[in-house]
Amino acid sequence: MEDLHWKTGITKVEPNKICLRGYRVDKLMGKISFSQAIYLALKGEFPSPEVGKLIDAIFVSSVDHGAGPPSVLTARTAASTGAALNSAIAAGVLAISHYHGGAIEEGMRLFIQIAKKAEDKGISEAESVNEVMKELKEKGKRVSGFGHRIHTQDPRTEKLFALAEDLKIAGKFVQIARAIENYFKDAGKPLPINVDGAIAALLCELGIPPEIGNAFFIIARVPGLVAHIQEERTRMKPMRKIHPEDFEYDGPPEREV
Amino acid sequence: MEDLHWKTGITKVEPNKICLRGYRVDKLMGKISFSQAIYLALKGEFPSPEVGKLIDAIFVSSVDHGAGPPSVLTARTAASTGAALNSAIAAGVLAISHYHGGAIEEGMRLFIQIAKKAEDKGISEAESVNEVMKELKEKGKRVSGFGHRIHTQDPRTEKLFALAEDLKIAGKFVQIARAIENYFKDAGKPLPINVDGAIAALLCELGIPPEIGNAFFIIARVPGLVAHIQEERTRMKPMRKIHPEDFEYDGPPEREV
Amino acid sequence: MEDLHWKTGITKVEPNKICLRGYRVDKLMGKISFSQAIYLALKGEFPSPEVGKLIDAIFVSSVDHGAGPPSVLTARTAASTGAALNSAIAAGVLAISHYHGGAIEEGMRLFIQIAKKAEDKGISEAESVNEVMKELKEKGKRVSGFGHRIHTQDPRTEKLFALAEDLKIAGKFVQIARAIENYFKDAGKPLPINVDGAIAALLCELGIPPEIGNAFFIIARVPGLVAHIQEERTRMKPMRKIHPEDFEYDGPPEREV
Amino acid sequence: MEDLHWKTGITKVEPNKICLRGYRVDKLMGKISFSQAIYLALKGEFPSPEVGKLIDAIFVSSVDHGAGPPSVLTARTAASTGAALNSAIAAGVLAISHYHGGAIEEGMRLFIQIAKKAEDKGISEAESVNEVMKELKEKGKRVSGFGHRIHTQDPRTEKLFALAEDLKIAGKFVQIARAIENYFKDAGKPLPINVDGAIAALLCELGIPPEIGNAFFIIARVPGLVAHIQEERTRMKPMRKIHPEDFEYDGPPEREV
Repeated sequence: MEDLHWKTGITKVEPNKICLRGYRVDKLMGKISFSQAIYLALKGEFPSPEVGKLIDAIFVSSVDHGAGPPSVLTARTAASTGAALNSAIAAGVLAISHYHGGAIEEGMRLFIQIAKKAEDKGISEAESVNEVMKELKEKGKRVSGFGHRIHTQDPRTEKLFALAEDLKIAGKFVQIARAIENYFKDAGKPLPINVDGAIAALLCELGIPPEIGNAFFIIARVPGLVAHIQEERTRMKPMRKIHPEDFEYDGPPEREV
Repeated sequence: MEDLHWKTGITKVEPNKICLRGYRVDKLMGKISFSQAIYLALKGEFPSPEVGKLIDAIFVSSVDHGAGPPSVLTARTAASTGAALNSAIAAGVLAISHYHGGAIEEGMRLFIQIAKKAEDKGISEAESVNEVMKELKEKGKRVSGFGHRIHTQDPRTEKLFALAEDLKIAGKFVQIARAIENYFKDAGKPLPINVDGAIAALLCELGIPPEIGNAFFIIARVPGLVAHIQEERTRMKPMRKIHPEDFEYDGPPEREV
Repeated sequence: MEDLHWKTGITKVEPNKICLRGYRVDKLMGKISFSQAIYLALKGEFPSPEVGKLIDAIFVSSVDHGAGPPSVLTARTAASTGAALNSAIAAGVLAISHYHGGAIEEGMRLFIQIAKKAEDKGISEAESVNEVMKELKEKGKRVSGFGHRIHTQDPRTEKLFALAEDLKIAGKFVQIARAIENYFKDAGKPLPINVDGAIAALLCELGIPPEIGNAFFIIARVPGLVAHIQEERTRMKPMRKIHPEDFEYDGPPEREV
Repeated sequence: MEDLHWKTGITKVEPNKICLRGYRVDKLMGKISFSQAIYLALKGEFPSPEVGKLIDAIFVSSVDHGAGPPSVLTARTAASTGAALNSAIAAGVLAISHYHGGAIEEGMRLFIQIAKKAEDKGISEAESVNEVMKELKEKGKRVSGFGHRIHTQDPRTEKLFALAEDLKIAGKFVQIARAIENYFKDAGKPLPINVDGAIAALLCELGIPPEIGNAFFIIARVPGLVAHIQEERTRMKPMRKIHPEDFEYDGPPEREV
């Protein structure tokens, strides 16, 4: 029989000892935040406290966006049929795809392409943006990470970029995102950076590979899905017809932190 | 046509303004941790800083447990066939069920049952433990949250309970868990509290409903699944036969935080 | 390392030869129907031609039930976000649970319980129905497999039972189902057998174990889900809001076979 | 509120009447096979009896391929954790992707591209095969649907093509598949058509759109997954470590139909 022995560099488990990327989990507990542990698991290295704060903000920004997104509707619909908690979560995750949550990976690939072109050709990021945007237009391709169905100025974007400035993490990728926004404004078709686009730029600054960019959205959104599943189970009748728009918020009124 | 109007108390979305449980998301960003936001989403109220710290420790404890658990094997196997990131995550989540991760909900139900019996009958928690354990034994039922295939003394349990003591959160449910551990020891069959049992006791202390107890494990583990999916995609050949045990760790050696 | 060798009795694969339950697949092809192969895979034995016909009718009865069922809504919603075909199918399957499709397993367990009680106590099936129905009523339990939101007389039920009579497969379980229907009628609350209840009775006649009863619904419905996914992808805009009721049929008008 | 009214051409549901693509389901039952109903659901038109027979053979060919494929391993692993039947099926379906089952869609796209080039340039299919294969080689692209890890001459392929000949369905796409096989043989690197490639060619002959080609594999394989899930649940211990290769068949010995 074939030798199936294989290697993994994530976690070492021995009797009474577990090390994540080399760090003892029991020593990490109480010392680092969940966000820092996520970064450690995904990047393999510890985030600085600044990076930890930014990651926290990214996750907080995307925990929930109301009852309308497709991932919430599939999770609630599955829950409504009596599905187990993990099944309903999985149904929600399966609806986080190209058009919902998918803009992060695509935005990252675009920003990286623009940065690479600037470097390869010795031109500025703004010039590279102009070239790439024209190419995309000629090919009839959509630009991911800009514009929103509901928000003309997404409050999460401004907050993320302001935080990144404060924490000295904003760099060329944030500039590229801004330059694209300006490109659209100059073209008379303003499409502000949305939260996916902002997260994409920041994950590029942090050196996260684009193929796991969407994971940041999925990780952030799973708790929101759980809140909706629980509300569906405890407050609604099974097998109700779930209207995708005709709902109103009746939770606590606006309050200060 | 039937009126399908419905209500939700989780998040209010208006143009350029998003409120989670009444709090503006852009104001939460930079101020609270992801763990606090998760607690807010699930409980509807803000955690105190102490509770926030404990929740962080719970999530950090369960981010990853190596390549062997079934959820990792299903996620890697799906990834190995070329599945999309969200599909591979969903495949992992579908294997977090009764016997893997499920001990949290079951443990919570047991602890709540014991606490209720103590209250109803005016007996001590230790007496209630004795009664309930005997009933379970007679019915041939397994007790969830105790014993582990690998760890005789799970380092995560001790750390969680120590933290809960320090943060003044440990109460009757931790006592109940300890009393069950003692019951097994006295019966000559030591089955120490495992990490699921410890989390179950702490979530009871926090007043989390048992039916979303497993969600805390799922939320914690999704980032670990992403790390494994990414490693599978970047380091392994597609469609390899994934041995469930014959792997070795080759990541960074043990290091201090 | 532990010996992980294990055994399976379903399919033997050798170079250039595949045997399903002992039969060479290449010899089965062209000779038996898909339904017969499904029965062979699940039961381990060949169906008689009569059983093959009945199984075909069961599957045909449940291929699709329009755009309203939750499994269709989750599959379409996932597809609408750009999910891969297999992901959208999986999202649909995750919404086939307790309240949707789940009545088959529950109906089977009820019919088997009634038949067993009749046998154990030496009473008629009708008497056993009366006893069990009274017990369920006292416990406030719902009876699965009877009544339908849309159909007062489900045309599929009558056809299935008529076929089972013709094929000499109808027996005590069909009688039990009829007796329950009569029980409801006599109680002044007519709840006719629905298609799930009818399938449950017939699968009992065929000796299928109840724990895979719902599989017959899932197997039947996957092709319907695929039709809806394909229609969603080719005819609708991505990310549309999918109304769960406000749709109309615009396919071919009624026609004869 | 936006008008969300929409249209669907698959199934019309009225009280006591269900029409699939215009045909009353209760009249279809007992008259057509499951395979014919699947074709009707997916294509919108009735298959001739010949096409019905070929579709049956396609499905029978792919019901199961032993315990080794990734979809079986994920389904069994999920089942082993105590997952619900529909969850375990979904986990299996999520592992039917690019490298496992995915060859059907890719093969169809290749065959259609070759046929189109032959038509556009007025050259023979064999000439078109030569041109396209050279292009693929230059781009370093893999050809889907040819070669198999276990079978040097897949018995299912020969049977499918022989049936298609008998039923007068084999046409230019079967010729193209054969021409590719010859191309590899002439290049000294024999890669026989595998069952995915054969199904791809036949679905092209039937005018099925390539984007649902893999659905035929998924529909065929779900019953096989159910058989494995049931065996896992009834014969194995929960949470066992499932070796992906070290299993042996202990079912009925080879027998004749």
